[in-house]
Parts: sequence; C-alpha cells; structure tokens
Amino acid sequence: MRLTTADDILAAQRRIEGRIVRTPLLPCPRLGEPLRLDLAVKAENLQHTGSFKVRGVFNALLARVEREGRPAGLTAFSAGNHAAAVAFAGRAFGLPTVVCMPPRAVPTKIEAVRRYGGEIVLTDDLAGTCESLAAERGYHLLHPFDDPDVIAGQATVGREILADGPPPELVLVPMGGGGLISGVAAGIRSAVPTARVVGVEPVTANAVGHALRTDGEALAVRPTSIADGLAAPFAGRHTLAHVRALAHDVVEVSEEDIRAAWWELLDATKLLVEPSAAVTLAALRAGLVDARAGTRTVLVLSGGNVSPAMLASLA
Amino acid sequence: MRLTTADDILAAQRRIEGRIVRTPLLPCPRLGEPLRLDLAVKAENLQHTGSFKVRGVFNALLARVEREGRPAGLTAFSAGNHAAAVAFAGRAFGLPTVVCMPPRAVPTKIEAVRRYGGEIVLTDDLAGTCESLAAERGYHLLHPFDDPDVIAGQATVGREILADGPPPELVLVPMGGGGLISGVAAGIRSAVPTARVVGVEPVTANAVGHALRTDGEALAVRPTSIADGLAAPFAGRHTLAHVRALAHDVVEVSEEDIRAAWWELLDATKLLVEPSAAVTLAALRAGLVDARAGTRTVLVLSGGNVSPAMLASLA
Repeated sequence: MRLTTADDILAAQRRIEGRIVRTPLLPCPRLGEPLRLDLAVKAENLQHTGSFKVRGVFNALLARVEREGRPAGLTAFSAGNHAAAVAFAGRAFGLPTVVCMPPRAVPTKIEAVRRYGGEIVLTDDLAGTCESLAAERGYHLLHPFDDPDVIAGQATVGREILADGPPPELVLVPMGGGGLISGVAAGIRSAVPTARVVGVEPVTANAVGHALRTDGEALAVRPTSIADGLAAPFAGRHTLAHVRALAHDVVEVSEEDIRAAWWELLDATKLLVEPSAAVTLAALRAGLVDARAGTRTVLVLSGGNVSPAMLASLA
Repeated sequence: MRLTTADDILAAQRRIEGRIVRTPLLPCPRLGEPLRLDLAVKAENLQHTGSFKVRGVFNALLARVEREGRPAGLTAFSAGNHAAAVAFAGRAFGLPTVVCMPPRAVPTKIEAVRRYGGEIVLTDDLAGTCESLAAERGYHLLHPFDDPDVIAGQATVGREILADGPPPELVLVPMGGGGLISGVAAGIRSAVPTARVVGVEPVTANAVGHALRTDGEALAVRPTSIADGLAAPFAGRHTLAHVRALAHDVVEVSEEDIRAAWWELLDATKLLVEPSAAVTLAALRAGLVDARAGTRTVLVLSGGNVSPAMLASLA
C-alpha cells in the first residue's frame, strides 16, 4: 500500500489554500503544567463546519476534478462531521449533495448538513445506500477516511503544526476510521521523523485497535461512544497501512475518562470542542502515554460540534 | 474628567506586552450572514484567566510600581473575572493577594482565584471590606473598572482590533461597570474617529444606562443577570465620562435574548464564552443597533468563564 508522500501533501496544501481556515496552534500551560508537558492545541474546532473534515473533502474533490473533471454531484456517508464538510464543499462548488446519515446522528450534525443545503437520507445501511445513490445519480462518492486524497488533505493539519510552532516531540490524535491520524502522522513524520505520533480511540469504539489486532477485521457490533465522531465501525485499508507504518502507539480510553477530560479541556482552553476531541487529554491523564517532563506535545482538537443536550450532560 | 489618550494607550501596550495573550480576531461569516454584517469576534475568552481583565490589572499594577514602587500586596473586590486577574498578576509578581467576592459568586470563578493562589474573603460588603483590608495590610487596591490605568489597559483590546483587521465601522462591547467599553472606545476612536462604539448591558443589570439617565446614581437594588460578569451595582466616574464622550449608544437586552444569543455564539464560533460575552449578539438579533448591510462589525467577546451548571441551562 502506497503511503502519503511529501509531494502529495504539498499538492493538497496548494489545492485547499484559501478554502480552509488556518486554525491557530494555541499554547495551553493550564493543561500542560499539571501533566509536566509543554502543551499546545491545534484548534480544528475553529475550522469551517467545525471540524478538520473539510481539508480532506476539498482535496479529494479538487483532485477528482483535476483527473476526471467536475462531477454531477456529491454523495457521502457519515455520522456527522464528514457529512457537513461534503455539504459545505458542494455548496462552495455549486454541486448538489446527498448524504446518508444514521437515524441516531447528533441532531446538531444533521442540522449542519441542512444549513449548507445538503439533502439527507437517514438509513442504517450507510455505505450500501450511498453506493446505490452514487450509481443512480452519477454522483461522486467521497469516502470519510479511506481515500489517499482525503488522507493527504488531513495531512495539512500536521504541516501547519510544524509551521506555527517548534518541532513537536509528541502529537496525539483522536481516531475514528483513522483518516486524521494517517494524515497528521504523514504530515509530521515526513518532515520530523523523530516525532512520536500516538492515536487515541474510545474503548467502546476501537475500530483501529481491533483492526490492528485482527489484521483488518471490522467491529462485530456497531460501536457507540460519547465521542460520537469516533464511532466508525471499521478502519480503512489505507488508514490501517498508515497507522502501522507511522504511528508509535494506539491507546484506548474509557467513557468516564473522556467525559472528565472533556470538561477540563473546555475549561482550560475556552474552546468549544466535541467529546471526540477530548480523548487525547483523557489518554494523558490516564497515564497511557509515556513522556518525559517538558515534552513538546500537541493535541489535535478534531472538532467542536456539540448539542445543548450534550453540554447539559457535563453538569 | 481627563479621558484616556493615545499616549496612555501606547504606554499600556508597552507595559503589558509579553504578559498577555495576543488574542485572535476571528471572522465569523456564520454569525454575520443572517445579520447581513461583515462580522468578526475579538476572542478575549482566550486571554489569560479567561477574560480581558488581566490587561487593565497588569497596566494598573505596573503603572503603580513605576510611580510608587512595589506594593506589599494586592487587594480587589469583584464577582469574579477581575478577582482572578488580580490573583494571576499577584502570582506573576510574587505578591500576596486577597480578594473580596460575593457569597453567590459563580463557583468556577472562586476556584480560579484559588488556582492562582489568591486568598478569598466572601462578603456582601465588597468595597468596604476591601478598603479595610487595604488599610490594615498596606495592600494596593486595584479597582475593577473605575481607574484610568485600568481603562488604558483595556484600551489595548481596541488597538489589537485595529492592528489585526480592516478598520471597523461598528464595535459592540458588553458593559458592567464600563471599564471595557471605556478602553475599547478610546483605543478605537483615537485612531478611527468615525467608528461607532455601542455598549450593551442586561435590562436587569443596567448600571451604566441608569447612571447616564440619573447623572451618576448607583442602582437601588443589587442587580442580577445570567450575564453574571456584568452585574456591577454602579458605573464609575471615569467610565461614565468615557461612555458619555466616546460611545454612540448604550442599549439593554433581556435575559431571554442573552440566553438565545449565548447558544448561537457558542455554536457558530466554537468558542466557550460566558453569557456576558453574548449581550452584543443579543442586541444585534433584537434589532437594537442600526447598521447598513455589509457593515464591518466587531463583537468583543469579554470572557469565557462558565460552570458546568451554567452550560446545562442551555439544554
């Protein structure tokens, strides 16, 4: 399996520049001091649509236009953030968009797709329905993570971390299907090979860890977690290859630890992040990641799409 | 009454540079589009201690050190954000700090003072107790708003807005005792005289509007609001003079409108802000501020200190 190269990432940076927010890398001594780390956060919750997903979507769409021309429309399946990103990109390019979402998706994430003018099909057969729609209408299907162009788009997060701060020694990344960590690991390690990249997923939604242990099997049961953005039922072939080659460790955190870390992250950073973005802090607090005192550490805050009801659960 | 000059502000900028966070000015089309405004937010919730207050505190403390040397300690009275800022500055300078807070203060704001090592006296006689402590211990009393050096410190918010974006045509500022709007109005209008600066306060905590109407009277009843940071019982003499001379309008918003604007602000900006920071959006949504389509508008997000219980009230 071919891994993302520095050239792929440079091409992605050029394609998506001006279409995405250059999100800030914010030092956070209040989180770092108790952990004895030199800690900063990459605030992808401030990205268009409230998550990193638009990076991969724009890159994959623009790469497709370069190769095969403009598609008739866009389709995708997603529990939320990828769906909103595809609808956002569809609106930007004047393309009709239809996304398949599970009926139990977070209402705020369904509303986001509507806000950008996307059509929604609620179904439990996400991939199947989406493939049928793509075939029927001749729409281009944008995979949420298992696509080299999507991974190269997410890699721009890693390049911005390098451009905006000192070279990190440790980068922690939330994992669902593995697209973000694949990109970030490629982006960071193609420039700073000594940096350690660690992926974190919920114990109850551990598609990547499970796939690593079983040589690629999907989860037997549909995963659920307070970190709804990470509840992918399987890891991709491309993402798994990247994680195997580039990530140093993959760790799993409990729902209770995610919840506690979530509030601490909100309170310390004053950023509105979704629970998915808090798994990395949960792993540090639980002592799952070795790091000597003073390690230059970056947490990738993957998104900020929460509902009032989710916030109420913090009280 | 002498108003803040460009020289005062330049001196403040030099004193506090490196001690404060240069907070970002973030464009926010999702808020601006429905209001037909070109809208950005100044994210002072990302400031040290989670509010703009450290700017005025550092400037007033450093100006006092220049004039009279280092004090034996610091004291202040505040319902929250000023208290935390004084404790933060005390720690930075190695000075003991004691702050008087009302027993009903938001628990998160009391904890913040403790985090920075400040001593707390809970009392309903805030100013009286604080003055006694200052006299007994020989501590320097830092007023939360009615001090020219505090106002000059807050004016640096205005200067950063000018430095980081195109000249704004309209700047909206939350008002409690009036320190922030006094500084921001001086900072903006000493450089861009045509810019309009509008102050917003809760109907139920309208100390500035009341003082304007009564030539300086304090409120008869202790004010309360979901915007706890704005519940000052009186406007200052210095702040009132600044508002009279430099603000174009002062408007009042309902508790219900603040609550609705608060959630919209969180959801659209992905910033954790306190309800006080949402009064400006509430005023725009309620149609209380005239502005032609496309007006370059900045909302000053004053702070981000909320408790889980407050967030739960959003659901």
